[in-house]
Amino acid sequence: MYSYPLLLRQITVSDPFWKREMDLVKESVIPYQWEALNDRIPDAAPSWWMHNMRAAARAIAARKAGKYTPAQKLVPIVTELEKGKPALSDAFYGWAFQDSDGYKWLEAVSYQLMRCPDAALQAQAQEAVDAICAAQEEDGYLDTFYTIIDRSKAFTNLKDHHELYCFGHLTEAAVAWRQATGQDTLLNAARRFGRCISERFGPGKERGCPGHEIAEMALFRLYEETGEKEWLDLACFFLDVRGTEPSTFALEENRRRKEQGLPELPVTADRYAYYQAHRPVREMSEAVGHAVRQMYLCSGMADAARLTGDKEMLAASKRLWRSVTGEKLYVTGGVGSTHDGEAFSRPYDLPSDTAYSETCAAVGLVFWARRMLQLEPRGQYADVMEQALYNTVLSGMALDGKHFFYVNPLEVDPSACDTDRRLSHVKPERQKWYGCACCPPNIARLLSSLPAYMVTVSQDTAFIHLYIGCEMTVSLNGEELKLKLDADLARDGKASLTVLSGKANGKIAFRIPAWTKNAAIGSDGKKKTERDGYCILEGEWTRGDTVQIDFPMPVRLLAASPLVRETSDMLCVARGPFVYCAEEADNGKPLHTLRLIPEKAAEARVDRISIENRDVPAITIPGKRIKADPDAPLYDDWTTPQAYDTDIRLIPYFAWNNRGRGEMRVWMHRM
Amino acid sequence: MYSYPLLLRQITVSDPFWKREMDLVKESVIPYQWEALNDRIPDAAPSWWMHNMRAAARAIAARKAGKYTPAQKLVPIVTELEKGKPALSDAFYGWAFQDSDGYKWLEAVSYQLMRCPDAALQAQAQEAVDAICAAQEEDGYLDTFYTIIDRSKAFTNLKDHHELYCFGHLTEAAVAWRQATGQDTLLNAARRFGRCISERFGPGKERGCPGHEIAEMALFRLYEETGEKEWLDLACFFLDVRGTEPSTFALEENRRRKEQGLPELPVTADRYAYYQAHRPVREMSEAVGHAVRQMYLCSGMADAARLTGDKEMLAASKRLWRSVTGEKLYVTGGVGSTHDGEAFSRPYDLPSDTAYSETCAAVGLVFWARRMLQLEPRGQYADVMEQALYNTVLSGMALDGKHFFYVNPLEVDPSACDTDRRLSHVKPERQKWYGCACCPPNIARLLSSLPAYMVTVSQDTAFIHLYIGCEMTVSLNGEELKLKLDADLARDGKASLTVLSGKANGKIAFRIPAWTKNAAIGSDGKKKTERDGYCILEGEWTRGDTVQIDFPMPVRLLAASPLVRETSDMLCVARGPFVYCAEEADNGKPLHTLRLIPEKAAEARVDRISIENRDVPAITIPGKRIKADPDAPLYDDWTTPQAYDTDIRLIPYFAWNNRGRGEMRVWMHRM
Repeated sequence: MYSYPLLLRQITVSDPFWKREMDLVKESVIPYQWEALNDRIPDAAPSWWMHNMRAAARAIAARKAGKYTPAQKLVPIVTELEKGKPALSDAFYGWAFQDSDGYKWLEAVSYQLMRCPDAALQAQAQEAVDAICAAQEEDGYLDTFYTIIDRSKAFTNLKDHHELYCFGHLTEAAVAWRQATGQDTLLNAARRFGRCISERFGPGKERGCPGHEIAEMALFRLYEETGEKEWLDLACFFLDVRGTEPSTFALEENRRRKEQGLPELPVTADRYAYYQAHRPVREMSEAVGHAVRQMYLCSGMADAARLTGDKEMLAASKRLWRSVTGEKLYVTGGVGSTHDGEAFSRPYDLPSDTAYSETCAAVGLVFWARRMLQLEPRGQYADVMEQALYNTVLSGMALDGKHFFYVNPLEVDPSACDTDRRLSHVKPERQKWYGCACCPPNIARLLSSLPAYMVTVSQDTAFIHLYIGCEMTVSLNGEELKLKLDADLARDGKASLTVLSGKANGKIAFRIPAWTKNAAIGSDGKKKTERDGYCILEGEWTRGDTVQIDFPMPVRLLAASPLVRETSDMLCVARGPFVYCAEEADNGKPLHTLRLIPEKAAEARVDRISIENRDVPAITIPGKRIKADPDAPLYDDWTTPQAYDTDIRLIPYFAWNNRGRGEMRVWMHRM
Repeated sequence: MYSYPLLLRQITVSDPFWKREMDLVKESVIPYQWEALNDRIPDAAPSWWMHNMRAAARAIAARKAGKYTPAQKLVPIVTELEKGKPALSDAFYGWAFQDSDGYKWLEAVSYQLMRCPDAALQAQAQEAVDAICAAQEEDGYLDTFYTIIDRSKAFTNLKDHHELYCFGHLTEAAVAWRQATGQDTLLNAARRFGRCISERFGPGKERGCPGHEIAEMALFRLYEETGEKEWLDLACFFLDVRGTEPSTFALEENRRRKEQGLPELPVTADRYAYYQAHRPVREMSEAVGHAVRQMYLCSGMADAARLTGDKEMLAASKRLWRSVTGEKLYVTGGVGSTHDGEAFSRPYDLPSDTAYSETCAAVGLVFWARRMLQLEPRGQYADVMEQALYNTVLSGMALDGKHFFYVNPLEVDPSACDTDRRLSHVKPERQKWYGCACCPPNIARLLSSLPAYMVTVSQDTAFIHLYIGCEMTVSLNGEELKLKLDADLARDGKASLTVLSGKANGKIAFRIPAWTKNAAIGSDGKKKTERDGYCILEGEWTRGDTVQIDFPMPVRLLAASPLVRETSDMLCVARGPFVYCAEEADNGKPLHTLRLIPEKAAEARVDRISIENRDVPAITIPGKRIKADPDAPLYDDWTTPQAYDTDIRLIPYFAWNNRGRGEMRVWMHRM
């Protein structure tokens, strides 16, 4: 009934655009991030990852030897550090969730090793695995923050500290590492930590759930990898305890308040919307709070619906999908429009200049969309997955693989960012490494596992969701087929699927992208039906069978729903899966005086531009520019604006800010 | 050479619209604020004004009796109060600048007494005067904050504390009170405080200037009232020391830092732009920082230019005027577009929804504009003065005179204000009384002294700046004329000026408002010239002479400069001096789907609407509304938007939010 993603080894990406991205991760991002995890990048914020792992191992050894004294409190240590004192070898530094950075890196490495073995890289990763295992306590507990600072406080602040979050990332890495290397070491570490958690939390035990979700989806994955039902149960427990009353977060807060002699707060859930713990998940219908958390929760909910057949969970997942994609999604596939809490704002509040649109939230949306596709293959899920992937996810990383955006605005004026504290979260240039470096390794692990998002297979059907050129081995009704997909959407919408070898009876379903019209899919003698956004070809597939695909990819002008106030009467340009933007480098400034002319869309010219030695698609479209005279009165009787003809030069959104500082703009007014 | 405003007793407002506003201040605002100053308004933030005056008097008496102990520190007291403990009779409460609230009230009362004697009101005001005088220390010092808390700290934090600001407001009130009552008591209190200040600060003495300007303009006024040159000198000193290096604010900060054992900061001025102390005032060319402060500084600079003939000061004033009105002014006459520092933002950054546009800043702009008119009668100054007065100043007060806006946005969605912390400064409804209640009494003192802004006279010319119906006595070349101006711009642009009595040879200059075209001014046999936005009639004026004025007042559609990003391609509706807005009460919501059609402006219908029992002008204009389907996709290929015909109903901006909560919008998209 349900579909499963192809295993990474079943698929080899050959697509010129995406292979380059995946290679970049391998050749640039992963080595760079290893240096970052080891605090060896000059002029970048330290990660402290390896430091903390080693300090935790030392703390454990010292405790065994009876020589452990709880480390100094966190804040004074950091203050000392700011005063220029050297780091203390036994102290914890950085954010409480910093352990996860290395886990994400290790997950990415694992996927790359599945793509292509690499002994040197594997040895480097083994160093990380060893460091992690050495930091695990005897009872399985594995979180350097509490191990270093004060183990007795473990699990007392699930809301704000991130043990369960780190557990989730550890588990994701552990499953990937086993799949890549066949080694159980890290998986066993994750299991031991998991048991340490499940001994404390669960039905009849302590109530509690992650302040930052991810443990849910990780536990479902651990269950799928090991078949051990305890992980499924723990994940379902975390989902169902969430948002119920008495609120576990409120109870936690009250325990702390009691220690401080403060009066207790009501144990209602309503003040925990930031954590999606304001109501039971089965009752949710609006995406709220911290966007990454919401995306990870939704991913876990979709897993639960699939693995348990829970209809309520499915219905809630679909309501949340509707809330996000119908009311709260940027055209670039970004989510979370306000910096206040890195969060979802109210419906249709999608400002361009103050956007948050965190890279990690777009990554999370891709995770969730794939899981919805596993629940039910509907084109809309893949459309949104593609939208996030080709635009905001890629925008998070520079073409050099060494600079990253955390926030992905749709409109930037660097001089405003420099001086306006309302824009303090918007960086006009990608940064080298963040103190809170969640995004770079999240991009790395997603891009390295791209095949898992491209195709899913059920008993009798292979669903092709993304048109990324590749070779793949699929099984239809137990019979294997080797297929080759030729595609390069960064050029055009022509593609073909060829059976390289094998023979099977069954269906291959081709997603018809929402961005095309008059899609042509050569049926080649197969029975052809259409359903839920897929063109399904059914029959016997044998070597040499070829399906010709033509998705016309004209330059499109998109408009947002009139309910989106900020983009009223504006247009943006898209072609295929790419959303385009104008940059100051090509168009001068200010960009807001440019005007698109709907009638001229047909005159748009598509060509290529070289940015950072990379050949990317570009569009030139005849437009207008409003004449702006700084000496004219600030307000005057309206007259038809004076405008002159100009070519508007556009590049894909993901490629912006690879040519230095400058204005950038996705949405443009129309003439 | 220079022009002077008519004294309040020389002019009696009869204009139906404005007389009602002035009466409202007399009958509602002033009594209400007296209750507020005495903390007798239920459910409103206490003012603490009378409390602090009396506590200061007790502190002085206790000190005389050798029984004074410095009051507890401010913060613990307020904390106690929040815990529900009763106020301590000897403690200071509220903001450090709270004294000024009562001074502003007293100034407003004085103007009302000049309009119309009122023994009961005068007796009440005398109570305030007595309380003030009793709070003055023997050496003239008069600031309840330091008198209560710790007199020894007086004048040590000019940057953040507001002694010189309170002195300024005291002086303004004192001059007005003497003009109204002939009594010198309060003026002498101001003089004594002034001497206490000038003994400490001035050439060859301590350097220092007000952290919040107003002392400058108040000192110039004291000089003009008394002829005592010491006040002119002190004002000029304050202006010229401002922004010079070593920065007096930096020196002050360093004194405090030294006491706390902190390292000294550089004594450069650049970090004091919030206070307009980042560079010498003569070198300023851009309005920056806290908007009210900037407006008060500009008022003082214009006074200096006029009273000293200082050409540099005049040039700087004109550059700042150009900066504000050419780049930083809302169409409603509001200034200060960012809540971050209640401040001016960068040029052309004029957002509607997050606007700050503080009522006091618009009041300050009116002060400054009048002073520019005294320097040189140019229509542009009066145009801006009128724009601020008819729109943002009036918007600051509800039609009931008992609720006030501090922030005046040009677009409001109450549900967004409720939940969005980026909008936490924007209140969707006027409040009763603010903890920081600078705006309500500022409106009161401006409206009560309206005649001072309407007409200025020089030796041979009476300049009519505002068309507000009134009777006035002017002197042309030493001969007196009694004139009657019939006007009611809240209805139409027809007006007339009649000589009621007297005989004089000279000029009467009629401002030609920027909002009219084809103005007709019946010359009645006088020699007619036009200059700098004024139509000047020259000749012999005798009883019965009448000038017929016709300023056509069509419904106008205004556009902002294309350099204003936020209002690109938007229009707003204006008629005469009033800017209009759409309210949810008349148009439903969302308002952002309304579309104005430029070609339909001529079909606009002007009528009246009754709001809060008040008859205000209204406009109905045929427009469109975009169909918005919440079930449609969030993004789609652009097609001509589906729209249906609708009448857009508009009311003057000042009258918004007098019918409960609802959306409001000034700028609208066009079809």
